[in-house]
Amino acid sequence: MSRLDAQLAFLTEADRLKSVLRATTLHDASRRENSAEHSWHVMLHALVLAEHAARPVDVSRVLTMLLLHDLVEIDAGDTPIHGDHDPAEQEAREQAAADRIFGLLPADQRDGLRAIWEEFEAAESDDAVFAKSIDRVQPVLSNLASGGGTWPEYNVTPEQLETRVGTKVSRGAPALWSGLSDRINAWFAGR
Amino acid sequence: MSRLDAQLAFLTEADRLKSVLRATTLHDASRRENSAEHSWHVMLHALVLAEHAARPVDVSRVLTMLLLHDLVEIDAGDTPIHGDHDPAEQEAREQAAADRIFGLLPADQRDGLRAIWEEFEAAESDDAVFAKSIDRVQPVLSNLASGGGTWPEYNVTPEQLETRVGTKVSRGAPALWSGLSDRINAWFAGR
Repeated sequence: MSRLDAQLAFLTEADRLKSVLRATTLHDASRRENSAEHSWHVMLHALVLAEHAARPVDVSRVLTMLLLHDLVEIDAGDTPIHGDHDPAEQEAREQAAADRIFGLLPADQRDGLRAIWEEFEAAESDDAVFAKSIDRVQPVLSNLASGGGTWPEYNVTPEQLETRVGTKVSRGAPALWSGLSDRINAWFAGR
Repeated sequence: MSRLDAQLAFLTEADRLKSVLRATTLHDASRRENSAEHSWHVMLHALVLAEHAARPVDVSRVLTMLLLHDLVEIDAGDTPIHGDHDPAEQEAREQAAADRIFGLLPADQRDGLRAIWEEFEAAESDDAVFAKSIDRVQPVLSNLASGGGTWPEYNVTPEQLETRVGTKVSRGAPALWSGLSDRINAWFAGR
């Protein structure tokens, strides 16, 4: 198999991310969004909201992380943050998915892209912390725009949002969480 | 309106790109793809295929161009390359769309992102030429994977593909077009 064959096999496999559905809907609530279009949207959030990062970030590295961050869901599925799941089991599924999916690439690209995905997952570098924050911000905006989105379905309270979303967003972009909290509280107050 | 309000208004408006349908289907032919998930996929193509660029490119600039390249379709719609259209009328619609959509952002971001989009549209810089090439490559791979995709519907011939796609892909990534031509010719020969 040629180098180009391997690259095209990876890109064809990646197409399947367009069929992985998330809990969140489009802003107009017309349908659930998929993980490919979510990935595009979250990258646009990162580009526009980078100035709110807690520490200086390399936006191009953040974009690359977010471009790759959900590919493992092709095998491992999406894990809604307000649903029940076993984190250890989820991690094992995602590691196996990363082995298979990045493994379709030529070895040098496999190792390079896998390392970026691992950095995102570890959520330790400034770039990864901000990327993780933005990945949590995008569904909040979808839910606010679509009349609460999946919050009523999962019986989510403002306190749970603070714990499950706020603490992570605040780590990478505290000013952004402050602005979103006001909007979230206004939404719950107006129900 | 605060700076954050303006940024969030832009990001909410951008969500509508997920409802703009293209002529191309998913690789499994299950449905037509939308311009948001296409944008994600074409960025992944750019990341993986950058080594085939005719001239050295700044991948992070290419990714930013492709992140933004289809936003104008929210107002102007997608223009299938194998359909009939008036290029001058299309450009006027896209310029008006860019005025409105980028105009939602704070002025500094409006001007910065608009400039990147204009550079892509002009297709003169090395980064833009490569980004345009990759934007043409992604639907070819979808069509090959989905049994010809929309080529039969539009009665597309290999000669038309060479003119409408090949010349543009070859400008930014000649080695890539060479590899794709072999696959396209094999597909037409096997019909």
